[in-house]
Formats: sequence, C-alpha cells, structure tokens
Amino acid sequence: MFLKEIKNPNDLKKIPEDKLPELCDEIRSELIEKVSNTGGHLASNLGVVELTVALHSVFNCPEDSIIFDVGHQSYVHKMLTGRYDKFDTLRKADGLSGFMNPKESEYDPFISGHSSTSLSCGFGISKANTMLGNYGRVICVIGDGALTGGLAYEALNNIGRSNENMIIILNDNKMSISKNVGAMAKYLSDVRTRSSYISTKRNVKGKLSKIALIGRPITRLIEKTKQALKYLVLKQNMFEALGFYYLGPVDGHDVHKMIDVLKSAKEINSMPIVIHAVTTKGKGYNFAESSPESYHGVSSFDYEIGLQSISYGYSEAFGNALCEIAEKNSKICAITAAMADGTGLTKFAEKYPDRFFDVGIAEQHAVTFAAGLASKGMVPVFAVYSSFLQRAFDQIIHDCSIINQHVVFCIDRAGIVGRDGATHNGLFDVAFLSEIPNVSIFTPSNYSELKQMLNVAVNERSSVCAVRYPRTVEPKNAENYYNGDSYYIKNRSSSKIIVTYGNLFNHANKTDYSVCKLNELKIDDSLIDKLLKFNEIYFFEEGIENGGIGQILASKLLETGYKGKYRLTAINEFVSQDDIDSLLKKYLLDTDSMNHIISEE
Amino acid sequence: MFLKEIKNPNDLKKIPEDKLPELCDEIRSELIEKVSNTGGHLASNLGVVELTVALHSVFNCPEDSIIFDVGHQSYVHKMLTGRYDKFDTLRKADGLSGFMNPKESEYDPFISGHSSTSLSCGFGISKANTMLGNYGRVICVIGDGALTGGLAYEALNNIGRSNENMIIILNDNKMSISKNVGAMAKYLSDVRTRSSYISTKRNVKGKLSKIALIGRPITRLIEKTKQALKYLVLKQNMFEALGFYYLGPVDGHDVHKMIDVLKSAKEINSMPIVIHAVTTKGKGYNFAESSPESYHGVSSFDYEIGLQSISYGYSEAFGNALCEIAEKNSKICAITAAMADGTGLTKFAEKYPDRFFDVGIAEQHAVTFAAGLASKGMVPVFAVYSSFLQRAFDQIIHDCSIINQHVVFCIDRAGIVGRDGATHNGLFDVAFLSEIPNVSIFTPSNYSELKQMLNVAVNERSSVCAVRYPRTVEPKNAENYYNGDSYYIKNRSSSKIIVTYGNLFNHANKTDYSVCKLNELKIDDSLIDKLLKFNEIYFFEEGIENGGIGQILASKLLETGYKGKYRLTAINEFVSQDDIDSLLKKYLLDTDSMNHIISEE
Repeated sequence: MFLKEIKNPNDLKKIPEDKLPELCDEIRSELIEKVSNTGGHLASNLGVVELTVALHSVFNCPEDSIIFDVGHQSYVHKMLTGRYDKFDTLRKADGLSGFMNPKESEYDPFISGHSSTSLSCGFGISKANTMLGNYGRVICVIGDGALTGGLAYEALNNIGRSNENMIIILNDNKMSISKNVGAMAKYLSDVRTRSSYISTKRNVKGKLSKIALIGRPITRLIEKTKQALKYLVLKQNMFEALGFYYLGPVDGHDVHKMIDVLKSAKEINSMPIVIHAVTTKGKGYNFAESSPESYHGVSSFDYEIGLQSISYGYSEAFGNALCEIAEKNSKICAITAAMADGTGLTKFAEKYPDRFFDVGIAEQHAVTFAAGLASKGMVPVFAVYSSFLQRAFDQIIHDCSIINQHVVFCIDRAGIVGRDGATHNGLFDVAFLSEIPNVSIFTPSNYSELKQMLNVAVNERSSVCAVRYPRTVEPKNAENYYNGDSYYIKNRSSSKIIVTYGNLFNHANKTDYSVCKLNELKIDDSLIDKLLKFNEIYFFEEGIENGGIGQILASKLLETGYKGKYRLTAINEFVSQDDIDSLLKKYLLDTDSMNHIISEE
Repeated sequence: MFLKEIKNPNDLKKIPEDKLPELCDEIRSELIEKVSNTGGHLASNLGVVELTVALHSVFNCPEDSIIFDVGHQSYVHKMLTGRYDKFDTLRKADGLSGFMNPKESEYDPFISGHSSTSLSCGFGISKANTMLGNYGRVICVIGDGALTGGLAYEALNNIGRSNENMIIILNDNKMSISKNVGAMAKYLSDVRTRSSYISTKRNVKGKLSKIALIGRPITRLIEKTKQALKYLVLKQNMFEALGFYYLGPVDGHDVHKMIDVLKSAKEINSMPIVIHAVTTKGKGYNFAESSPESYHGVSSFDYEIGLQSISYGYSEAFGNALCEIAEKNSKICAITAAMADGTGLTKFAEKYPDRFFDVGIAEQHAVTFAAGLASKGMVPVFAVYSSFLQRAFDQIIHDCSIINQHVVFCIDRAGIVGRDGATHNGLFDVAFLSEIPNVSIFTPSNYSELKQMLNVAVNERSSVCAVRYPRTVEPKNAENYYNGDSYYIKNRSSSKIIVTYGNLFNHANKTDYSVCKLNELKIDDSLIDKLLKFNEIYFFEEGIENGGIGQILASKLLETGYKGKYRLTAINEFVSQDDIDSLLKKYLLDTDSMNHIISEE
C-alpha cells in the first residue's frame, strides 16, 4: 500500500526501485476500481502505469515539465502528484479534471484535452526555459495515434532542428482511440518488429571489424561498406532523419528498463530525444486488453463483469440512419478521424468498407479529402465531434464553401457534453459555421428528425451541410416536427414565444408558451414576419452567445424595426465539468429556468 | 512563338520535344513581361516552367487532374490550358484568378489559395476516380515549403498506405515563401546532396556480387550484409518509409529529364509516387533569382530595372513598432509562419534573432508554441495574415483562451485584400475571435494607433489579444484617437451616428455624421448608454455580417430596449478579386455609400 503515502513525487523517489512493480500493481488496481465508479478513460491509463512511475522516479516535477498529450492518459500522473485522495471526484463538479489542467495543479504544466498539442506547447515551454535560464527539462508523452495529427508533425519539424534537449516519449500502443491507420502507423510497426535488425547491425559491424585476413581491395571495399552502412543506419530511422536522438524500442511495461532509458536520455544535452516505448492499451485488465476501444472512455461499470451493453444515443441513431440512406445512394462515403466507435460509424464500416475512411486524428485532412471526393460527385459525410471540427475551420471555408462543395458534416457532441469539461464542449460550431457563406445547419431534436434531416442534407442539397446533435439521448415519446421547413411554430396563443433549436426544444416544449423550433439555423423573411407578431421573444441557445443564431436573429429583428422585448439566454464562458442536466440548469437553459425567466419579466 | 498557337494541352503535344526548351524560354519572357504589368506571383512561376510543360506533355488534362499547391504557381499551367490570351486580366476584376479556380476552367480541378491542401484534395479526387471507375490520374505539385504544413503530412500519412497511383511532385526550391526552416527542409537538403550516396550504393552492391573467391563464412556474412543493405536502402528514404515509390532527385529545369521521369511514373500502378524535382525560384530572371523573396508576390514594376522600393504600409508600421517595444521588454518574442517579409518582421529578425521564430507554414504549431512560451512568462507576438489564422482556430480556443494565456496576435490583411481574391480576404477574424471568451480585439485606424494598441496588448494586458489592421496604407494626416478607451465618439450633434472600426473609420470620418469609432471590439454598458441617445445607428463593417461585431451590438441594443433605427452594412459572401477601393464601393462601405445610405433613409 504505497499510494496513500505518496503526497508528491519526492515520496515516490523514496520507494526502492525493486518495489516499484508492486506500486504499479497497486496503481493498476486503483485505476480499475476508481474509474469503474466514476467513469472516465481507462484503457489508455492502464497502458502508461510503468512509464509514468518511471518518469516521476527520474525527473523532478514541477521544475521539470511532463505533458501528456490528450491529457486523458494523465490519471497515474495525478495519483503521483498529490491528487490520489481526490480521485473519487474525478470528472465531477469541482472535482479532478479528466485531463491535464494547470488550474488544478502546478504539476500540470499545460491544458491538454485535444490531441497532438503536447509537442508544440512543450517546445514553447522548453524554449522559454532556455531563454529565461531556467533549468527545467520538458518531457512530452505522445501516443502513436496523436502522432497522426498534423500539429504534431509541424512541431516535430521545428523541434528536430533545434538544440532543445526536450524528451519525447512515443507511447506506441499500436492504436489511437480506435485502430490506428496510415503510413506512420505502418512505419512504427516496422520499427517495432525490427529488434532482429538491430542485432544484425551489431553483427555486421562486429564481424566486419574482425576480418583481417583478406587482401587490400577487399579491405577498402569493406571500409566503404562500413561507411555506407553507418550512413544508412544513422539516417534510417525517421526520427533520426528529422534530427532526433532515438532510443528504443523499449518495453514500456518494464519499469526498470523505462527508468534506465530515461536516465540515459537525461544525460543527453543540446539535442531533442525520442524514446520509443511500446505499451499495451488496457494492460492488466483483461476486459480492457481484449477490447481497448470499448474501454477508451467509459461510464461507470461493474469491474468484475466489465462493461455491459452501451447506449450510444444520437451517435447510434446517426450510424443507423446513414447505413440505411447509404443503401440507396452508392455515392455516400463516411469519414471519421479515428472515432469510428464514438461517432457511431462502426456498423457503416462493416457494411460498406469501400466507402468508409478512417483518416486518423487528422480533422483538417478529413475535410479537404472530403471536398476532393465531393468535387468528383461523391457525397462524403464526415462524422466528428463539435469541438474537434474546430480544427478544420479553414478547410471548411477554403476547400468546401468558396467553391460550394457538397460535403456533409455530422456534428456529434454539439452543445454541452458534461463530464469531459471545458475542452470538449461543443459550444462554438453554430457560431463558426453560421459565419461561413453557403453552409446549411440542421438541428434535429430527436432521432427521427436526425434521420430525416440527414436524408435532406445528403440527397436534396448540393452545398455544404451540417447536421448537429447533442451527447444526450432523445426524450421519451419524441415527436417529429420536421416537414422540410426551416422552422416550426407551436402556437399556444400567447404573446410570448420561445425560440430555440436542437435539444433545448425538448425543454421548451414542456413550458406553456408558444415555441418556435428552428430546424435549420437560418433567419429568413417569413420567420421574421411570424415573430414580429409576438410582444416578447425569448431565445435560448445551448452554445456561445457571440456569433450564435440568437444574436443573428436579434440583429435582423432590430433592423426590421421590431419594438418588442427580446431576451437572449446563451453561454458566455467556457463550461466546466458536471453532468449535463446540472449544467443546463446553471446556464438557465432547462424547462424550469425558461419558465422562471419568462414569468419574471 | 509557340504560345499563341497553344489553345489547349493537345496543341502543346504537337510541338516536337526538342523545341520545348524554346517554348520554355518564351513562357519565361511572357511571365516576366505580363507579371511586371499586372503584378502577381513571379518567382514561383519562373521555377515551374519546365515542370509544367513536361506535365502537360505527358498527361491528358482535364481527364487527368493537376493540382498546384498554393495555386499561385499555376500561371504556366493557365498559359497552356487556353488562358494565355487572357493573361492581361490577371488578378483584375472578372479576370484570371491568381490561383487555381474550377469556376475559371475545367483544367483547374480544385481551388487552391491556401498552402498544403493539394495532397488531401488530390487524394479525394483519386479515390473518387477509383470508386467511380474513372481513368483519370491525379498529379499534385507541392513545394518544400508547403510540405511543412501539418495538413500535407496528414495527407501523406493517408496516401502512403493506399494503393492510389497518385503522383506527387515535390517542387524542391529550397525555400517556401521566405527561407525554409525546419527538420524536413534539412532532410530534403540531405537527400539533394546525396547523389554520391546513390553511386556508392550501386558500387557496393555491384562489388559484393562479384566476390566469389572467399570462403563460406564470409559469403554468408556478405549475404547478410546484402540483406541488411537492401533493407536499409529500401527504408532509407523518408517517402519510401511512408509507402511511396520515390523517383529523384531530378533537375526540374531540364524539360527532357522531367518528361522522362514523368513517363516512368506514369507506368507505375497501384502505388503512390513521389517525384523529387529540384528547381530554382525565380529561374531565368536575374533580379528574381538573386532575391526570390522580394519577387514572391509583387505589384507591377519595370522589368528592365526590377523592383524598386516597396512600401509595406501597416506591416512595416507594425514591424517598426514591435522592434521599438521589444527594446524595452526582453520577454517579447515574434513568431511568423514563413512570412517574415510579408508581415513586416524582417527588421525584428535581424535585431533580435534569439527572440524570433519562423516556424514554417505551420499556423497551428505557431499558436500552440506561442501558448507554451506564454505559460512560462514570455510574451509571444504571432504576426499572421487574417485568412491564414483561420487555420489555428482550435488552437486559439484550446491552447490559449481556456487557460487565458497572454498571446498576442498581430493580424495583417484584415478585411478586404483586393487582387488576391476570395481565398485571401480577411473577412472572418472579427467573427471567429469575438466568439471566443477572453479575447481582446484591437482595431487601429492608423500607424500611430497601431503602435499604441500593440503596446497596450503586449505590456498592459494578460490574456489573449489581437491587433488587426488592413492591407492598405494609412490616410494622409491621420490623427490618433486612441487614449486607452475601448471606443471614441466624434459627436457632430446629429441624431444619426455611424459606428465602425479600423480602416472604415477613415471613410466614416469624412462624412458629416457623428461617428463612434470602436478601438476595441467589445460592447459594454457605457457604449450602449451613449448609443441609446441616437435615433438612428448605422453600423459599417468590413467583414462578414454573421457573427460580426455589428450583430453583437444590435443584439445588445435590442435587449436593452432600443427603439430607434438600426442599419447594418457588412459583407455576406466571399469577395472576388478587384482593387480594394472598388470593392469597398461595391459593398457600400466607402464614404460615398455611407452618405448615400444615411441620407436615403
């Protein structure tokens, strides 16, 4: 029972190295028990137990900075840096974040919720340390999945030619969130399986040097061969070619070997280093090892029997709808950025493998690739979480909208997502898509509308479309109010009307007021005409206020000369972790708040 | 005189190969003459003359698709595909675009104005061709500079593991727009200088196979060595490691060699190919060869004496101001994404080389790297064109704003940019920055205000700041109206007031109406109080309407109960190429239009 005694990394350093495997076992048990209670990211954290223990054994944080890319693999780090006793609050309101967060601890040097950022911010920290004369060393832990993101490559390209002694630990677990794809993955697999090559190299060198009996020409030839070999060997590894000192591959579950390699890395100066650690996602928990994708991000579960059936809500509804629509339209393709499971595309991938593309964690490429497909008449559907589509803002503008390509975005996790917190909320998509010309935004309030709107977006439109839906499930007895019109007004003969869309419509529909439900986020003259008749208009928006459709409507109303009352309730800040219902209440977006706001005025 | 006879690539194919160098000479002369008249991109086009002639000699467009990355290197392609006679209209209203544009010609398969997009959209086109059973081949021409963009890497990662027989021509001119940076550049330079290595490789193999006189153990050793060599050689090249068939390096100015290598590439099937062509930017025009950066994008000039002094307007004013401010604050760093010249940072780079970072064409990395610097107390200033900052939208949200980093964005080319057209206008920055919490946006109307606001942003604020300024120059006798307040009202005792900011203030100031000039784009209660006194409010915005500050103001006014007239004039579509004054007139944003709109109502 070591964990209780570890208040900070110095306490860890007091444990003799031969006891560290026991500590690792304890951490692993705790991870399984705690996460099965709170929900969270399990498989990735089980994969970095030894690696993290080794890191804190060798380096001195917070002087040294350890950054876990996509911070959901930082649970072990949190346990070792004074947060073990708070683990029951993981992902709860005011509790521990499921990601790294500098506001939570001085041991978290940077926020990390999105993928592939660690190398860039780590390079910034390292450069700043150098310029300021700080001693601190920077260590980034990045998975092979995150390495498919262009941002990581941009950073490698800058770090590789620098003299910063940053250490990059490539946590190679042979998959990102779902099964890894792409040339880099293939390449890493080649490197992994080449331990035989390394011994061959040593063999050749050793034997060559022993050959003394042969005549001069041969000696010269062999000298030449040695040179060629040396050159080739030096340049052979891609990371070395990019300017890194490369160590590995090393077994990331052997804490002693990890400590050794980290100590070696610590000795190297004036040069960036890549340590290639091979790990197993889900290590030590059978259910997770055999199905790491299912245990990537989980809700609470019984750890003795493992995860049972999961309901995917809108994601599953989307996946089913797309499969059905794709059966009649062979031009439809589906694209995911390493999120086939999370976005509900698994069934599509099985049914239509030739029309399914997992591009890796590469949202920019996903969008421009989709635009290329569309330019030849295919109908690409990119299923993506709202907060990750932010990465492809320029590609939507430049590659899709200017030339009006028929690309369909299916935006999952739109609005408040709950326990994943500030980095993962889908607050911005309505604002950033509304400002782009030629983009239609559909906002279903239930599965049936989702399917119908998806069908319209795919089969009846010819320019950029987005269909956005929340993380929640549809309400019981949901009714379909979509008949192809961009809005629907449920008139309850009052002078007061609520305007809203998507999931919030389900809340508004439970009030006694008239409700205008936006099916498509556009403000046309007919809508304005209808709304002008109401004395009081209350807009509720589960998204950022500035740039949202609530402000666009307000502006049109004011320009038209509307003299009534207008009250916009939307979100004005980054939203912290909590359950979705509590957050809707906090931001005055639930039925009670609606009633209260309207009756109060 | 071949060019006049070439109406399409088939006419080119009728010219005997031995005459092609003459054609290339003619094209080069025409480029220099035409571009010196119209302005445009000269150096990059002079670098791809032979390459483009060879491409159209070997491939059959438009069945085959040739995509020039950052389409400004597509002038020669335009000349050979039926647009030679329109070259005098280059970059003029309704004339030829300075980039590729499918609306202009069936020979332009995709739009390309931003960097690093060609591989992704080319892969989409190639996949679509395969799925649809089209014959067409896809050829992407991408510079070594564009290859530093993460989007290009994401695409390589996907293409490399596919079976698409796409051809990527790496146009290696040893620089992007300014001098290239980074590990990839270093790597390419290694490859370029390794022709000796290739002969060594052949030597070794050849000699090894001739050795028959040595005994068995040695033979086995040598067999092993051969295998190791073969393996190493196969994997040695980074593109090969990623799954490409690699051909090169080849002299990109030898039209015959280019034709040969393209013919070889055409024979390869079921595998993506990289042809590494080495070219010289500015080739054939002395002035441009010796100073290719100056001849990247030019205004019209006298081609016999070359470019004379250039006025950089706001960019230069920014660069000078930052140098001055940086003298007193050693924490200030400047970052550019391969645009030191264009953003006015050349002087800073010379004066403070240790605090200057050119990260290559890598806007995402630039922002996250800046956030890393800021997290340690440095004050990074990222100077970037508005339309390119779109690439880093997520990084501004995730890495800068959620944790409130003090990063300063100096946004050049904000608003209408003129002849570069739709892909390059800075229409979106106000909208996409306004929606992000914790971002301050400063909008100077002249150089003096720019300097003062930059100083406030750098020295007096502690969260994300943006200072945005246009492509134009300041007006004569510009007055500084900034005293630290977020707005300034020039009261001309009328009941009508114009609200605007940035460059448009200079137009509004010439009317006889009261003007509210926003120095910072935020709407606070004090501003609303002041505006409520006016019966008519006219907002003019040189940016996209949806999400702009004009709508945000409207919404606040309506919620406050403003009953007066509100008229918002902003931009609602992508803006085509023309000179800036004509475009301001077209969108009713110049002084005359302001007067007209207000007096008419």
